[in-house]
Amino acid sequence: MVFMNITKHRVRYADTDHFGVVYYARYLDWFEAGRTEILRDQGITYADLEKKGMFAPVVEIKVEYKKPAKYDDVVELETTIDKIGNSSIKFNYKVFNSKKELLCEAYTVNVFIDKDMKPVRIPDNIRAIE
Amino acid sequence: MVFMNITKHRVRYADTDHFGVVYYARYLDWFEAGRTEILRDQGITYADLEKKGMFAPVVEIKVEYKKPAKYDDVVELETTIDKIGNSSIKFNYKVFNSKKELLCEAYTVNVFIDKDMKPVRIPDNIRAIE
Amino acid sequence: MVFMNITKHRVRYADTDHFGVVYYARYLDWFEAGRTEILRDQGITYADLEKKGMFAPVVEIKVEYKKPAKYDDVVELETTIDKIGNSSIKFNYKVFNSKKELLCEAYTVNVFIDKDMKPVRIPDNIRAIE
Amino acid sequence: MVFMNITKHRVRYADTDHFGVVYYARYLDWFEAGRTEILRDQGITYADLEKKGMFAPVVEIKVEYKKPAKYDDVVELETTIDKIGNSSIKFNYKVFNSKKELLCEAYTVNVFIDKDMKPVRIPDNIRAIE
Repeated sequence: MVFMNITKHRVRYADTDHFGVVYYARYLDWFEAGRTEILRDQGITYADLEKKGMFAPVVEIKVEYKKPAKYDDVVELETTIDKIGNSSIKFNYKVFNSKKELLCEAYTVNVFIDKDMKPVRIPDNIRAIE
Repeated sequence: MVFMNITKHRVRYADTDHFGVVYYARYLDWFEAGRTEILRDQGITYADLEKKGMFAPVVEIKVEYKKPAKYDDVVELETTIDKIGNSSIKFNYKVFNSKKELLCEAYTVNVFIDKDMKPVRIPDNIRAIE
Repeated sequence: MVFMNITKHRVRYADTDHFGVVYYARYLDWFEAGRTEILRDQGITYADLEKKGMFAPVVEIKVEYKKPAKYDDVVELETTIDKIGNSSIKFNYKVFNSKKELLCEAYTVNVFIDKDMKPVRIPDNIRAIE
Repeated sequence: MVFMNITKHRVRYADTDHFGVVYYARYLDWFEAGRTEILRDQGITYADLEKKGMFAPVVEIKVEYKKPAKYDDVVELETTIDKIGNSSIKFNYKVFNSKKELLCEAYTVNVFIDKDMKPVRIPDNIRAIE
């Protein structure tokens, strides 16, 4: 079964650059929102994971930028879970503008670690999502 | 005696917005650099203060923006210490473009606190700066 | 008559710093959202103003930070219009955490200018808001 | 012949997140600095390209994060040019901490376009770099 989370983001001056479009690094803030919210949809919060001493930093990201996002548009981010491994999760992302044109595609790999930066087994309630 | 620290910052796409100038919040990143470096000039680092359980968050800021900063220009930030109180420091900032035109003036008030967010007396080696 | 706009912002990793709270510059991104939305509530968009050759950069900001905002909390930003002058608007901002504690208070002064950076008279439909 | 540019970046509060390390999107700001500076080393500036109606947005990025960067450390970014195509350039990046540990590796592909977003042939003075 495939779960999808949709978050919407109004493009602010803060997100744009002097070429008049969204700066390429800003998408990564949105991706963070996406993967946090798709887990929240399943009742899992990073904040809770942290209280249990777990963290899930990004170890790999790839982004393909296809069309620019413009000021004041409301972009839609679709986040899905691609794969849950022993201690890593791969998330996929697609960003659309308000005309439903695909602006960019990306994935991140997040690894679950403890406070000493050692990989840990992903909790069962997360593994159960896939 | 007045100490001054000068840091230089090349304006990146990352700093600009779709109006073609530096976004108003980016100056605050530079101010952080300025107050960190003016203390480092005196042999004091925030990193060390933190190891001793002290933090110095900004509790007040005022900025007056006079002229925009442009892409690829190298701006110069002058940081000075205005006043050292019992547990607070006031820093003043001036930003100039490469033509030496004044782009903005600002101050921040930083309060020294412990881990429980309680104000603490500023260490003597910092008080000695003024 | 006083108009108020409320925007809500989930605190992301992207917003926080290594002290574990929202970085002081990030509030300015939220303020931008607030003043854009309070105008949109009245049927006015910056995007339209720009098409007419008008811009409204911030020329002054003051922020008082009272309590830190924490990761994953949903903060609420209240934006009001304090005063509309000939070519400037003063906006007031208050940020609350989800416990309704006041986190910070701020104002910005925005000046309406044309492409040549000259102040222009604020359009009547905006003046009519106050 | 391989040209390498080295830029150094002091890690600020502004760059860190509440996990205590540099936020994954901040590296992209540094990469921008790296590719701008390696071209400047050859006498080519983005600012000049823009005056000629050329732009070079990122169309693809991949980053592998290996170790976290810490507050107040000075990281070193090595930028090299991997390949210059007809209208695209591939840049490689390596970030090291002050102990010379490799923190991350990345590449970007930038495409040269005109104002109408159409790919254009990369100018000869840039092609000559490789």
